[in-house]
Amino acid sequence: MVIVMTPEATQDDVEAITDLVAAAGGEAFASRGVNRTIIGLIGDVEQFATLNLRAMPGVADVVRVSTPYKLVSRENHPDRSTVTVRGVPIGPDTVTLIAGPCAVETPEQTLEAALMAKAAGATLLRGGAFKPRTSPYAFQGLGEKGLRILADVREQTGLPIVTEVVDAHDVALVASYADMLQVGTRNAQNFALLQAVGAAGKPVMLKRGMTATIEEWLMAAEYVAQRGNLDIVLCERGIRTYEPATRNTLDISAVPVVQRLSHLPVIVDPSHSGGRRDLVLPLTRAAVAVGADGVIIDVHPHPEQALCDGPQALVDGDLERLAAIMRDFPPLVGRTAAVTVAATTGGTTTVTTTTGGAAAAAPALA
Amino acid sequence: MVIVMTPEATQDDVEAITDLVAAAGGEAFASRGVNRTIIGLIGDVEQFATLNLRAMPGVADVVRVSTPYKLVSRENHPDRSTVTVRGVPIGPDTVTLIAGPCAVETPEQTLEAALMAKAAGATLLRGGAFKPRTSPYAFQGLGEKGLRILADVREQTGLPIVTEVVDAHDVALVASYADMLQVGTRNAQNFALLQAVGAAGKPVMLKRGMTATIEEWLMAAEYVAQRGNLDIVLCERGIRTYEPATRNTLDISAVPVVQRLSHLPVIVDPSHSGGRRDLVLPLTRAAVAVGADGVIIDVHPHPEQALCDGPQALVDGDLERLAAIMRDFPPLVGRTAAVTVAATTGGTTTVTTTTGGAAAAAPALA
Amino acid sequence: MVIVMTPEATQDDVEAITDLVAAAGGEAFASRGVNRTIIGLIGDVEQFATLNLRAMPGVADVVRVSTPYKLVSRENHPDRSTVTVRGVPIGPDTVTLIAGPCAVETPEQTLEAALMAKAAGATLLRGGAFKPRTSPYAFQGLGEKGLRILADVREQTGLPIVTEVVDAHDVALVASYADMLQVGTRNAQNFALLQAVGAAGKPVMLKRGMTATIEEWLMAAEYVAQRGNLDIVLCERGIRTYEPATRNTLDISAVPVVQRLSHLPVIVDPSHSGGRRDLVLPLTRAAVAVGADGVIIDVHPHPEQALCDGPQALVDGDLERLAAIMRDFPPLVGRTAAVTVAATTGGTTTVTTTTGGAAAAAPALA
Amino acid sequence: MVIVMTPEATQDDVEAITDLVAAAGGEAFASRGVNRTIIGLIGDVEQFATLNLRAMPGVADVVRVSTPYKLVSRENHPDRSTVTVRGVPIGPDTVTLIAGPCAVETPEQTLEAALMAKAAGATLLRGGAFKPRTSPYAFQGLGEKGLRILADVREQTGLPIVTEVVDAHDVALVASYADMLQVGTRNAQNFALLQAVGAAGKPVMLKRGMTATIEEWLMAAEYVAQRGNLDIVLCERGIRTYEPATRNTLDISAVPVVQRLSHLPVIVDPSHSGGRRDLVLPLTRAAVAVGADGVIIDVHPHPEQALCDGPQALVDGDLERLAAIMRDFPPLVGRTAAVTVAATTGGTTTVTTTTGGAAAAAPALA
Repeated sequence: MVIVMTPEATQDDVEAITDLVAAAGGEAFASRGVNRTIIGLIGDVEQFATLNLRAMPGVADVVRVSTPYKLVSRENHPDRSTVTVRGVPIGPDTVTLIAGPCAVETPEQTLEAALMAKAAGATLLRGGAFKPRTSPYAFQGLGEKGLRILADVREQTGLPIVTEVVDAHDVALVASYADMLQVGTRNAQNFALLQAVGAAGKPVMLKRGMTATIEEWLMAAEYVAQRGNLDIVLCERGIRTYEPATRNTLDISAVPVVQRLSHLPVIVDPSHSGGRRDLVLPLTRAAVAVGADGVIIDVHPHPEQALCDGPQALVDGDLERLAAIMRDFPPLVGRTAAVTVAATTGGTTTVTTTTGGAAAAAPALA
Repeated sequence: MVIVMTPEATQDDVEAITDLVAAAGGEAFASRGVNRTIIGLIGDVEQFATLNLRAMPGVADVVRVSTPYKLVSRENHPDRSTVTVRGVPIGPDTVTLIAGPCAVETPEQTLEAALMAKAAGATLLRGGAFKPRTSPYAFQGLGEKGLRILADVREQTGLPIVTEVVDAHDVALVASYADMLQVGTRNAQNFALLQAVGAAGKPVMLKRGMTATIEEWLMAAEYVAQRGNLDIVLCERGIRTYEPATRNTLDISAVPVVQRLSHLPVIVDPSHSGGRRDLVLPLTRAAVAVGADGVIIDVHPHPEQALCDGPQALVDGDLERLAAIMRDFPPLVGRTAAVTVAATTGGTTTVTTTTGGAAAAAPALA
Repeated sequence: MVIVMTPEATQDDVEAITDLVAAAGGEAFASRGVNRTIIGLIGDVEQFATLNLRAMPGVADVVRVSTPYKLVSRENHPDRSTVTVRGVPIGPDTVTLIAGPCAVETPEQTLEAALMAKAAGATLLRGGAFKPRTSPYAFQGLGEKGLRILADVREQTGLPIVTEVVDAHDVALVASYADMLQVGTRNAQNFALLQAVGAAGKPVMLKRGMTATIEEWLMAAEYVAQRGNLDIVLCERGIRTYEPATRNTLDISAVPVVQRLSHLPVIVDPSHSGGRRDLVLPLTRAAVAVGADGVIIDVHPHPEQALCDGPQALVDGDLERLAAIMRDFPPLVGRTAAVTVAATTGGTTTVTTTTGGAAAAAPALA
Repeated sequence: MVIVMTPEATQDDVEAITDLVAAAGGEAFASRGVNRTIIGLIGDVEQFATLNLRAMPGVADVVRVSTPYKLVSRENHPDRSTVTVRGVPIGPDTVTLIAGPCAVETPEQTLEAALMAKAAGATLLRGGAFKPRTSPYAFQGLGEKGLRILADVREQTGLPIVTEVVDAHDVALVASYADMLQVGTRNAQNFALLQAVGAAGKPVMLKRGMTATIEEWLMAAEYVAQRGNLDIVLCERGIRTYEPATRNTLDISAVPVVQRLSHLPVIVDPSHSGGRRDLVLPLTRAAVAVGADGVIIDVHPHPEQALCDGPQALVDGDLERLAAIMRDFPPLVGRTAAVTVAATTGGTTTVTTTTGGAAAAAPALA
């Protein structure tokens, strides 16, 4: 932490700060310049934060130097992590395809979408049973009935389930069905929910708040991690900007930026960021090429009948091209697509996932 | 709702839409131009929204014409509303000052801040017992202990209490102490919480999400209203922009814009928008002058020791100037400051509020 | 300037920097902490900027501490400046009203608008002869013919002229007619134009770029000032945000923020920021109340026929209310409205401006 | 164009509009609904724009339906264009690499950078002689001396030159040296400059304004096209958002969006958008994968000594990886890298460029 004094700050002002920091168990080094004095602080930043140094006489600015997140930071955990969802890895060696319907509507629609997803190479099934909607008049999801449909479709297809939870008090219920709990963009600072999913013992997919800075996003992950759960996958899904041509602006740069700051895997949602079907495949290619650890994509057998976000769902004709992207691009970034072999026997689903090692030669990887 | 077709759209494309709308009980009028056809829809917009018209062949754009909120809209409720909080009005005839500490820390600090607030003309006491914080390492509030302190200070000062609730399942607890429930900026799309406060039977102050459009903000209010509670006060508290000089950018224009769209009262938070003490009084003047129905301001007896947002709290020396603003500016916009006379007898607090009529002559009011 | 090293930086990395800074004539003080080293630099920041310290091994961040603008900064010029435009002051003691048509269309329309402006208390006439338009198909202004109309109307009304210049090579022409040169929001980083108006010997009104940070805006002013012209008035006119309800978002906080950073006067354009007639008067009240040194407002005798921005121009019925604002609000912020008495005799216009001293008692001023 | 009336609009209000439109030579169709009337207009939109319909009584909103740009639109020019710069194509069949130093500093540095660029597969050389800089104290470029250096380096390497022009009155000078004129982000609405480059008879690279919407960017291109020049290449270079981790946010989605709206080629600048060397290669991969028609990249032999934007320039070690990207990724999107064979004989440079046809099978292309 660095304290920048105003040009008018007195020697007493400087000493008041160095004394205060010393009393809090830290050290303060003042560097006096021609116009200003700068004070560097060494010690426990969280404790300094409680000192309200910014309000002290003579202080012009307080610049934080170390990162405010610890558990999810790469500083103390230099190796990038792999999160495993019922045997399916999401991490630096693979490109995982998660796909499925935006919302679970019927058993038939969900199964059809799951089979489309699987045919395109998906190893995890997405699908919403609880939908947070901006309008109270919009379809809000099927709730537990939707969770049961997802569980049935997992049985039939072998695909583990990723599904959203929107209320802290539904976490136990959703976790009893889901293989991975999703926290959506509107709940990115719903701290009660973040803590609850952190305690639920299931992997978590944490979408970026649609107006969260990268630092706020990592702080949200820190809330989950603090409850003892480091099986967190971050999902970039577009941010709010002034540009109206797309629903949100996919911040593709966030992928390498976050991978440098945090050891957690980062995936991309090309469906919700653009909100337009014609952008999904180009953005999927961009996501894999930039180095994302996976993508999550809406598919729907009959998007014109979808109760939620139909205009962005991929349809049958797109899936072959999606499969081709998942086959051709990962080797160019030194990865394999995550491949799952599922054997369903009776009521038990056994999932075996084979992830190839990174290609021996990956010349295009930076 | 208006459907704009692409130049390539065929007659069949147009008919497919008019048929679909008719089947849904609506009417569709096609206007054919040289280059394009436009289709106007008349009927139930919510139902049309489920038709996914945007995904139909030949559709270039779907433009919504009517507002998606109904209960909070001024369309069907042209008179602006006054919300009364334990006898204190917030509405078009008054300028209500809500003040108090950002966070409740101790009984002494809360009482001192409340007395400062009252001396400056406040008729409602703000104070946080549950604090949503970006960092899990920051002070999170005293919880129910803080609520009890607030109730004691209400007893001592006669000021009704406004306090935040951050989790749907704390609503009953907080409502048992508070006179008005605040929903904070980070929870502006926490729909479970919005519905819960809507059902709690207490007035609600709904802060604008820090990146919510005005329409999204009004939709959030609609969630509250749907549960039967129209005692909602909207609070503009700054939006996220690219400008780093202030914590957020106070969207002062939002006040008259919202007052035109909705009948609900709108107040301004000049403390959290700027995040700087030196901006609080100028922004308070601007808020009253633009026509806000009130302001909510942080005060703290010892901001250098504050556990939360000390740098923006007003201190003793500022309060006389705040009182002068509350005295001099409201008449220029045809309002009176809300004045409260509180008589505390035993365990019962009787609050009598006198609000003068609008000044007879208000030449500067637009 | 402060250099923050990475946790992995070596002692050699630190010494490489201190040596480089010393070789450039500066001083560098390293403060070593448990995890990181921080280096404070003292000396000529502009020179340090050429060292590319950010690219040196071991550097995590470079934090600039002093302001990059000098001539317009308040650091070396603590008193706020008054700029005088042909006798009309814009500065800390007054609230100057500048009004007129967005674009000069005809002699009649311009004269009529000028008389409307004058009746409302305006002491300077705005009017565009060169219009920068987003679309090449939109009306681009009358050019020199428009300047001649403005000069005639100045003759008839005694109001000095503020008009925009959009190309560096038109500066001499425009300056031969205008009393104040306006640089518009789209040219806020047209550095050739900024330098040319800086050399023209006329006061300059510099609108904020619609997406300029306050620092960039002050840097643009520095370009003007560098050419020897400190008669610069800054004009806040709304910034681009995600909110669609208004054309731009008026950054009302920018007024006190800039007044603290720079000695230059700051005015507000409530017409272009909102783009809506119904917002002009509320935003004018907010601007005066927040402490702006003036406002610039579009008026038009027949806005339904205006060739540019008609929907935001004030019309006759609004002007009495505008006059009332200019009469009632300035005293509450310790100012007087600038009053001009113009005597036109033959070809010479004599302008006498009386600006009252600040009100003796200004209790609401912060 | 669609006019949406308010619920209170009268029949007379509607007729006033239909009459006005008819008088202007257009047709107006009114569709009356339960709550509102909608009027569709057919005819010349530019003419309607002069009618100020928004200001008519009873009008709630005016919605433009057709695009405001014509010459650059794909509506009347469905095939995507290829722009050829001294024999080097930029268009839908190729991925063109433009590289070189941000600023021309010395003959040696420029030549070294050009050779680095060429080795990585560049077929065009970028380099700035006129630099628009936010600070007047920053290096502003070598001017014509820099242009001569670029011409010499073209002679030595065979690489055609792309260089920026910042003032309308320098266009002839710059065009006498350059093969392609660049208009930078700060001049995206400098209409005098846009018109001047449109008339210069050289291909133009038009960077997106750092806060321009896609529509404004295409309108800027329309200014160039209006002067008879359709050899325009659009360059996405990042937009201003609230996220501080990168200098700007690369709007990768803009590439397919613009390619759908306009026939002009679109390239990406991964250097300036992120402002960080570590992001250049990942963003280059993303750009090629999303379907960009080229990339423009800063390289510098000694970035630690660069006078401008050193921290983002690629250095020697990165170039092999850049070359690999340019070799491996284009075939996956059905393209070839543009390959140039230059034979320099005496004072004449003959450039032969071979661009392979699109790969026969391009399964991943969407």
